[in-house]
Amino acid sequence: MKFTKMQGIGNDYVYVNCFKEEVKDPAAVARFVSDRHFGIGSDGLILIRPSEKADCTMDMYNLDGSQGAMCGNGIRCVAKYAYDYGIVDKTDIAVETKAGIKYLHLTLKDGKVSEVRVNMGAPILEAVKIPIVSEKEQVIDESLEVEGKEYYITGVSMGNPHAVIFLDYSPEELELEKIGPSFENHKRFPDRINTEFVHVLNRNTVEMRVWERGSGETMACGTGACAVAVASILNGFTEEEVTVKLLGGDLKIFWDRKENLVYMTGPATTVFDGEIELPEAIA
Amino acid sequence: MKFTKMQGIGNDYVYVNCFKEEVKDPAAVARFVSDRHFGIGSDGLILIRPSEKADCTMDMYNLDGSQGAMCGNGIRCVAKYAYDYGIVDKTDIAVETKAGIKYLHLTLKDGKVSEVRVNMGAPILEAVKIPIVSEKEQVIDESLEVEGKEYYITGVSMGNPHAVIFLDYSPEELELEKIGPSFENHKRFPDRINTEFVHVLNRNTVEMRVWERGSGETMACGTGACAVAVASILNGFTEEEVTVKLLGGDLKIFWDRKENLVYMTGPATTVFDGEIELPEAIA
Repeated sequence: MKFTKMQGIGNDYVYVNCFKEEVKDPAAVARFVSDRHFGIGSDGLILIRPSEKADCTMDMYNLDGSQGAMCGNGIRCVAKYAYDYGIVDKTDIAVETKAGIKYLHLTLKDGKVSEVRVNMGAPILEAVKIPIVSEKEQVIDESLEVEGKEYYITGVSMGNPHAVIFLDYSPEELELEKIGPSFENHKRFPDRINTEFVHVLNRNTVEMRVWERGSGETMACGTGACAVAVASILNGFTEEEVTVKLLGGDLKIFWDRKENLVYMTGPATTVFDGEIELPEAIA
Repeated sequence: MKFTKMQGIGNDYVYVNCFKEEVKDPAAVARFVSDRHFGIGSDGLILIRPSEKADCTMDMYNLDGSQGAMCGNGIRCVAKYAYDYGIVDKTDIAVETKAGIKYLHLTLKDGKVSEVRVNMGAPILEAVKIPIVSEKEQVIDESLEVEGKEYYITGVSMGNPHAVIFLDYSPEELELEKIGPSFENHKRFPDRINTEFVHVLNRNTVEMRVWERGSGETMACGTGACAVAVASILNGFTEEEVTVKLLGGDLKIFWDRKENLVYMTGPATTVFDGEIELPEAIA
């Protein structure tokens, strides 16, 4: 099986061009290739397939073989692959995902894609839809007690639920492994939650760390960065264009409030091309 | 740069055939390719170079760019590469390493190498040479107090120092992250030490976990498995052929007491072939 390893701010997947390759058992292949010592090593497998409604389909599998709906860092790499490897020859493309069709704009450098802007859709602020248990309609700078300490959260869903917390110090200092699970499983978050800890650096820049539900701390979370930008704007800390600094790199987020759409711009990088002989049982 | 990713019981390196490729700055390339999110992902880089004294040279770099002397799991993969990719056409070969010339025997399956036996040399038992501070000449089943608890250690050097501890329960249950550093930095080990925690399953089989100095817990340690077999035999727990079960897989160790040589036999696996464009600064 031919493949390409790509990453977006450290969020790395094995990409397979299913316009040419056939993958019979994607869940098993995802588990096999994702292993970082015995396989290729990745956060999962993304198959780029033909689509009837868009330029291509992003068919995504996590490292445990479960199917993923959408990944902001992954879809930027899908767009880069589609252009660099000749599946499309235009710089505005549509990609079908399990979370609907996503629209992307490509920036080129020396004839190859260097950066991709993704329309991430409208943020959802209604507490009941995020969901967060609250007496108010929206959760903005609302008190939450965790392990006997008071935090102030702002709730945003970008298709998945986020609780954003602003600190007056760098999140570097946090013992995230200790406190993360207490946020994730707090009784006010019926579907659990992703928690972002944010330090505002200036009117256009914030730094963050994220504790993802089911995954723990990760280097990069595209929807998390969008939620952080929306929360920063709602609380009056930043303008509508925000550079979000994550452990794996920077994302630029723009909340177009007139259209109520969030745009995420970030890099997409090809690491290497490879060819692997799959074990017979899953080939 | 063309490369091949190979692994021996989970100990994985990026292998480059320097009969054909040129690598100008191996330390920088090792750091770049080893990164598991932004690079290829590996425990380090191994260059297979011509040798004037042996069939080839194993030139090894750790993930921090420092040069390694020898790796039991790595050298089995070097042997497999040399045969499978046509550098040698015989099944008994010599490989030059920073720790001297090593002799290997290859087992073939369907015309490719499936298993490799490595002559790991003579075990060193003198306490002062390992080094372990002791009043006796050898350290066999000797008491050691760690964090207020008494352990019994057997000391073996296979070029690097090991303290082997036998448990009457599976090492699975150990909180290695907690106790490992207290062994590693104990005052009786002037060069620090690798510590193996072993459970004897029968006269020919043991299971182990290892805490490596400078690395913490690893899935596989070839010299550690050799030290464990030697210690098991010295304490009368096993025969002279021992299957050592590590987290990453099994190694078969044979201590030829007449010649006083330790032989390690284990698998070597090609995971995939790839080609990577290195950043200009290190290309």
